[in-house]
Formats: sequence, structure tokens, C-alpha cells
Amino acid sequence: MNLESLNTPAALIDVERMQRNIARMQQRMNALGVKFRPHVKTTKCEQVVRAQMDAGASGITVSTLKEAEQFFACGVRDIVYAVGMAPTKLPQALALRRQGCDLKIVADSVVCAEAIVAFGREHDERFEVWIEIDVDGHRSGIAPEDDMLLTVATILSDGGMPAGGVLAHAGSSYDYDTHDELVRIAEQERAGCVRAAERLRAAGLPCNVVSVGSTPTALAAEHLQGVTEVRAGVYVMFDLVMHNVGVNDISEIALSVLTTVIGHQSEKGWAIVDAGWMAMSRDRGTQRQKQDFGYGLVCLETGEVLGEYLMSGANQEHGIISRAGSADQQIEKRFPVGTRLRILPNHACATGAQHPAYLAVQSDGTVETWPRFYGW
Amino acid sequence: MNLESLNTPAALIDVERMQRNIARMQQRMNALGVKFRPHVKTTKCEQVVRAQMDAGASGITVSTLKEAEQFFACGVRDIVYAVGMAPTKLPQALALRRQGCDLKIVADSVVCAEAIVAFGREHDERFEVWIEIDVDGHRSGIAPEDDMLLTVATILSDGGMPAGGVLAHAGSSYDYDTHDELVRIAEQERAGCVRAAERLRAAGLPCNVVSVGSTPTALAAEHLQGVTEVRAGVYVMFDLVMHNVGVNDISEIALSVLTTVIGHQSEKGWAIVDAGWMAMSRDRGTQRQKQDFGYGLVCLETGEVLGEYLMSGANQEHGIISRAGSADQQIEKRFPVGTRLRILPNHACATGAQHPAYLAVQSDGTVETWPRFYGW
Repeated sequence: MNLESLNTPAALIDVERMQRNIARMQQRMNALGVKFRPHVKTTKCEQVVRAQMDAGASGITVSTLKEAEQFFACGVRDIVYAVGMAPTKLPQALALRRQGCDLKIVADSVVCAEAIVAFGREHDERFEVWIEIDVDGHRSGIAPEDDMLLTVATILSDGGMPAGGVLAHAGSSYDYDTHDELVRIAEQERAGCVRAAERLRAAGLPCNVVSVGSTPTALAAEHLQGVTEVRAGVYVMFDLVMHNVGVNDISEIALSVLTTVIGHQSEKGWAIVDAGWMAMSRDRGTQRQKQDFGYGLVCLETGEVLGEYLMSGANQEHGIISRAGSADQQIEKRFPVGTRLRILPNHACATGAQHPAYLAVQSDGTVETWPRFYGW
Repeated sequence: MNLESLNTPAALIDVERMQRNIARMQQRMNALGVKFRPHVKTTKCEQVVRAQMDAGASGITVSTLKEAEQFFACGVRDIVYAVGMAPTKLPQALALRRQGCDLKIVADSVVCAEAIVAFGREHDERFEVWIEIDVDGHRSGIAPEDDMLLTVATILSDGGMPAGGVLAHAGSSYDYDTHDELVRIAEQERAGCVRAAERLRAAGLPCNVVSVGSTPTALAAEHLQGVTEVRAGVYVMFDLVMHNVGVNDISEIALSVLTTVIGHQSEKGWAIVDAGWMAMSRDRGTQRQKQDFGYGLVCLETGEVLGEYLMSGANQEHGIISRAGSADQQIEKRFPVGTRLRILPNHACATGAQHPAYLAVQSDGTVETWPRFYGW
């Protein structure tokens, strides 16, 4: 199979770029002296995760228990489910642990900790629980100085489910776009999570793991003293949002959507393609960033970036390609019907999720199908 | 299976509402004296399409050839693929026709018409081609007064692939929100498409089918003289975008996402749920409408609408529920951890696409799994 034989739309992975992205992150983590635990929600793809493990990753992070089940079936044992545990999902987590999966679960409230203790005792299972720490007001977690931290850890410890660690995610790092700001938010993430661990230990409570991470903070952190591991996901593909944040060049984006020109509205300077939001996702993450890429940045089929052309609109199975700024009245000649283009996505996690499989393009031009799963 | 036994997040269909939506549209089409050809891209689900056919639909509309293949395998023969034909997809269309599928394909350019003629002759296949008409500058198609219409029809006719009809979609109808505006755009869609058909016939070219439609125009049209069939998709579920357009009450929305509260940030008035954009989609279609519903409108598990609460933010597997206007400091008591809620979506097509199956809730409370497919 080669590029020319593919049906469109299709999600392409440039394998050489992916391998470089993996190596870059792993080398950085090695230099900073921490373990690296990739977040597999970005790709949900065995071949990608195998490449991450082969490069030196220690275990994985998942966003759903289905991801845990799928990757445990692929042979990965060390898994953290980094979303606050819904009590109703405890049977599913228990089943994984009973099969030998070293699954860690997350809590950030008294109610959740109590539910884990009650369920664990009832089923004679000693869950390993990590406490989620809020370092930037982004979403979930307990602030490091909040005494609820000690309350939750004590409930777990007294209940026989000692907290194995603390975990933070500075999701607000996506809101910045200068190196200095990223260094600052990375340090805030590190310091907050380490502080939470110190408070637990000072109170005589266990806390072995100090886990932090997001792609921007992982790549910006100047040191990671006190941290034991880092988590990041989107770095494996990178995307236009991350480019605007300032952590990757456009030439490092490993994911694109192959599409075919199916028509034109010449007076408007539009080419119509067979990739719409179903193939790109509805993610408009660059809308409020320093450069708005619409639904994606247009490249030739070879991957050469055409800096001026964007997917400026999208319906379900139609995309509108136009030149930023002024309409290209010659677009019908530039991109005749049948022309194949690649579109770089705003958000690799969201675009990947629209596709049943990736088409992995090797450096010799051969193409392999790499399935990805979805659902819960 | 019942509601209480479902894992979350899950895409629920209220079957009674769905049946009412189907009946409402079919009765309207019957009264207007036209055939009705539902667009199955909204659900890609056999059980839903069967209900539409049972209510009186004549054939289906698809947005991908995979939909055509899947529904032909379910026994539907009369199918129009309503996206401009990419020449590279002609072998796939040919295979369907050779199996007995009465597949109609669409062209809106000389290049496309010539490609169909060349391929059809080469394979001795007489494709039925409909010409796409642009009635509102929304996306694709040939304007009714543009002489390219006659050129394309002549190429097809001379090449032995006579145009079977004309097809228009007033996609801009989504941009309006008053009855008068919808009546006007419906009439514009009708008149433009009928005019194109008249021009073809006046030139001695065949044109049997005059196909128009979108959910808003189908529900607003005062008459459909000259039209032979109507297409619409989202009406089967309705959603918050259509509610803002003014074509459905919130109580008619048949699709929702069941989710579980997993935590809180009480000072901010946030409840965190286990449905994020992966379950809702990134569709923010209500953002520029008269009422912005964030990522969706919150209901109790029973379906009772809580008018003040929205999903105000979404990460991949986390949603943030908050009260519109002022923060609800009591949200932790109102929606404790483990509470199950339903979220009504902005856009039923986009939200459905995130799920491997619907969970169809019957009026007696029993639940069936209705699979849906994805990909191309």
C-alpha cells in the first residue's frame, strides 16, 4: 500500500516525524531524571504506544477504562487512569486489577475516597489511589494547601487504600504562548504537586509518586526536583494548537488528513474537498490563539506546506479551502478536481478520534494500517 | 437492560420522541405532496433508518459511500450520494451499482461530468447523475442561471449518462431564527432548484427529480410546487442548534448524553462529569446563535430539563457543569458525586458520531443497543 492507493479522507501519520517527536520527549525526560508515562488518549493506537514504550516510556496514562482494558490486553501492566473515579466504575477497575493489571485510580474528594474504601473492603481489594492536585484552577483536584488533601489521604490510609502518589496536570499551559510563561507554569505545576507530596509525608502519610505533566510544561520545565514522573500525550503528533503555544514547528506535526478536491466556487476562491468536520473534528482550538488556522492548514499531498491556504469552513463531509486574506480566483487551476491535499489539524487528539484507523506512512513511502479504537 | 444499568458516558435516544419527530416530518411531506428521502448521516444507524422507512420514507440520502454500502447491505436500494463525486471514488460507486444498488451520484462541474462519462463508458455503466444546484451561496453547486448548468447536463447526456435530476441544499437556513426568514429561504431553495430543472427541460435535457432540503426549510416551506422530493437529516433527533433556529422545542430533542458527576470545584460552582468533548463532540454550533448553550444543556437522569445549568467547558473526558449567570455554591449538594445527568447536545450529527452505539430508551424504560458505524 502507498499514498496514491489510499481512499480519502484518511488520517495519515508521518512515522519518521512521530519517531522524532517520541525521541525528543524521551531524551528530555531522561535528561531531567524522571520517568515518562505517555498519555495514550491522543492516539488509542497499539503501534504508536509500542513505539513510545520501545523508546523508554514507563507505563501509560489513560483517560478511560476502555483504554486501560485495550492496552492491558496488549501487554501494558502499569497504567494510571487519570480521571477522577466514578464510584459506579469501580467494578470495572476491580476486574482489571484481578486480571493482573497494575491499575492506579484517582480521587480528589472525600466522597470518592470513601466510595473506594467501602468498595475495596467489600471486595478485599487494596486499590492504589493517587490524589489529584489542582495547580492552576484549570479543572479538577485539591489545592496543595487545602487541608482536604490530608483528610482524603487519611480516609484512604485508614481504610487500607494508602495514597500511592499525587498527580497534577497544568491544563492552563495551553493558554500561553511564550517560553517564559511556559517555564513559569511548568514550575507552578512542579512546585504545587511537590508541595502536596511534602504535606502528605510530613503528616506521616505515604506518597511515593509525584506525577505532573502536559505537553507544554514537559517541554518547558527547567528542572523537575521532587517529581518522579511526567505525563504528556499530544507531543507524539503535535498540532497547530501546540504550534501556537510555541512548542513545535509546523514541520514537526506528524498527523494530517488526506483529502481530495471535489469542486470549486471560483468567484469566491473556494476549493471544496471531501474532508469536512467528520474527518477534521469540530475542534477550533486555534480560534482564540495568535494565529487562527480555521479547520486546518493545507499542504500538498507530498506534505509541503502551503502557508496561505486554510480549511476555512467545514460541513459534515465537505471542507472549504481558501487563501487567507484575499480570494484566489485561480484556485480551480491551482487545485483541479481530483487534486489530493493534506490538512494539518488544530488538535491531534480530536482529529484522530474521528478515524477508525491511521494510515502510517513510512519514510520509504509504504503505508500500513494502524487501527485505533473508540468508545467507552 | 435499563437506564440505571448503563455505563457512562452513553448516547441515549428517547425512542418515543424520535418516533414523534419522524411522524411529524413524514406527515408534513405527505401534506405537501412530495416524497421524503431522509439523510442518514445524522445517525448511521440501521434501527433509526428502519423507523424512517417504516413511516413512509422513499429511499435515503448518504454523505459517504460507506453509508451507501452499509444501508444497501441492510436492504435499502434507492440511495443518493449527495456529495460531489470524486473521480477516484467511481470504482466504489460502480461496485455498488453492479450489486444492484440504485445509487445516484452528484456532479457540479465539467471536470466531474467528464470523469463520470469517461469512466462510465469504459465500464459500460450508465450512471444516474444529479446536478447540484447552488441556491444560497452556501457551499457547492451551480447557480440556476449559470450556463454551466446546461454545459454539464449536455456533457452527461451526450456521454450516455443523462442527468436524472437536480438537487439543492439551502445550508444557510441554519443561519436564521425567525419563521419569516425560514419561509423565505425555503422558497428561495425551492424556486432556485425548480428554475434549474425548467432550464434543463427547456433545453431538451432530461430532469425528472427535483430534490431540495434541509431540516429548517423542510419544516418552513409553505408549498413545494415543482419539487418531487425533500431531504433532511437532523430532524430525527433535533438539537439545540435547531432549537435556536426555531424549528423544535427543547422537549422534542431525542438525543442526549448520559453522564456521571465525578467531582466538584465548589467555590467556582462547578460539578465535573465524565462526559467531555469526546462524548459531546467539539461542536459549539450555538456559540453564535441567540442562546449559547456551551457544550450542552443539563437535564436530570429522568430527562427533566434544568434550564439554568450548562456544560460550560469540556476537556477530552471531563465536562464542567455550572449554572448560567451566577455560580451555584451549593452545586456539590445539588449534584453529589455519582449523580447521573443527561446533556442535550448542540448538534445531534456531531454528538452521535462520537459514539459506537446509541442506547435506545423505550417508553417502558427498557433499553436496547443500536449500533452505529463510522469511517469512510
